[in-house]
Amino acid sequence: MNHTLMVNGLPGKMAEAVIEVALERGYHVIPFSLSGLPEGEHLIKDQSFRLISIAERDLKIKEIRNDHPNLIAVDYTHPTAVNENAEFYIRHKIPFVMGTTGGDRNVLLNRVKSENHYCVIAPNMGKQIIALQTILSQMALNFPNLYEGFTLEVRESHQSTKADTSGTAKAIVSSFQEMGIVFHEDQIQMIRTRDEQLAFKVPENYLDGHAFHTYTLKSPDGTVEFEFKHNVCGRRFYAVGTCDAVDFLSKRIFENSVQFNFDMMDILRKGGM
Amino acid sequence: MNHTLMVNGLPGKMAEAVIEVALERGYHVIPFSLSGLPEGEHLIKDQSFRLISIAERDLKIKEIRNDHPNLIAVDYTHPTAVNENAEFYIRHKIPFVMGTTGGDRNVLLNRVKSENHYCVIAPNMGKQIIALQTILSQMALNFPNLYEGFTLEVRESHQSTKADTSGTAKAIVSSFQEMGIVFHEDQIQMIRTRDEQLAFKVPENYLDGHAFHTYTLKSPDGTVEFEFKHNVCGRRFYAVGTCDAVDFLSKRIFENSVQFNFDMMDILRKGGM
Repeated sequence: MNHTLMVNGLPGKMAEAVIEVALERGYHVIPFSLSGLPEGEHLIKDQSFRLISIAERDLKIKEIRNDHPNLIAVDYTHPTAVNENAEFYIRHKIPFVMGTTGGDRNVLLNRVKSENHYCVIAPNMGKQIIALQTILSQMALNFPNLYEGFTLEVRESHQSTKADTSGTAKAIVSSFQEMGIVFHEDQIQMIRTRDEQLAFKVPENYLDGHAFHTYTLKSPDGTVEFEFKHNVCGRRFYAVGTCDAVDFLSKRIFENSVQFNFDMMDILRKGGM
Repeated sequence: MNHTLMVNGLPGKMAEAVIEVALERGYHVIPFSLSGLPEGEHLIKDQSFRLISIAERDLKIKEIRNDHPNLIAVDYTHPTAVNENAEFYIRHKIPFVMGTTGGDRNVLLNRVKSENHYCVIAPNMGKQIIALQTILSQMALNFPNLYEGFTLEVRESHQSTKADTSGTAKAIVSSFQEMGIVFHEDQIQMIRTRDEQLAFKVPENYLDGHAFHTYTLKSPDGTVEFEFKHNVCGRRFYAVGTCDAVDFLSKRIFENSVQFNFDMMDILRKGGM
């Protein structure tokens, strides 16, 4: 499909990553981006993007919408901009895919629902990770006590600037707890130093941007071991998920879907079709 | 609970492993075992078990049943004995847990069904492996194309006497195929030599009895990797699942369950309760 995208949040790295994948897929990415910065230019490879400041955006978007009536917005901006941006998209009737986290999520979801506004809202666009979380939580529902008596070891490595424990690791740990494992969140091993990361098999060129997770379960006598791993280098993975979400949303708009609001589970369930 | 077990299939290693776990749990294991061998004795640790031959078993069991009216049989005998043994248990009204593979499975299931005979029939008693297979097949149903474009590497190691490819690996591969991965069964890497097994982290003392499986999925550009592992050393794991099945069946009998025939999924769903 020939989508026309406006990727908002430049010069942010997620917005950049989405633009790269979108261009590779042959999507048309317009050279404008809503930004928290003042008006300006931002270069990605050879292409120049005009940053649109908050002050000028309502005026500027009218012109853009005239030229690109089938525009879809991708939003990787800032937690403080989440609700305001959603209002902006609603006001100008621009369907959107939002990967930005934070803001008032209840207000966000209620607004797009009451407006029947086409959008995908997903704080994590890593499709296969969402799927793994989902099946582990189903496993916990279907098979209580499955891992009773087993020990759990959780190691997660992220760039050294990430101060808190991985939210994904916490979510997955809670499923294992429901399966009968005695484990406290603070037992999650955070790996944040260069030497430990290299020993944990993080490639050197991704030390500054990765998300590696290993969950190891052992039977009481040590004769049985289960291990689940999900290792992501860089941001491309999430950019791919975001472009899949654009593709999915575009199809729903084209077929005049009577469901308007979607999350990654909707996309996963339909296999992105 | 205070079960009384008759573990059939001595001198087989699975029968031995079940007896060890059952004794540890404080179950009462009677000193008799149906066997394909002629009458004889078999020692496990300090305890002597009387092997009961096919010729004498119908006579001998009457006496045993008189002494142990609440007897439950565990069957780890031989594929050729599966249907005959089921008839024997039905004839003498002995509930049973059968881990023996082979035989005519349709006849087996139809017979216990038509007789409302209490039993657990499960060719694989490894609970957490059954659960993993189940959720991966659910994942394939719920999330078609999830791993589209990913590559898959499957490595499985078993004792060198195992000539064929792991059936569990094949079942799990078929789920990944349904999730969009292009992979042929004959790409499964069978590890059967000592040096490769040691390199695959099989403990030396389990080279002659283990089941190690690793499934590695990689995104096209190599930046994303998922890995699932299940490694079992020895037979204890299956013996534990078997004793859990005994426990489960005993509870169903005690409560006069109107469901009579069970498999590992029933046990998993109830968390063994």
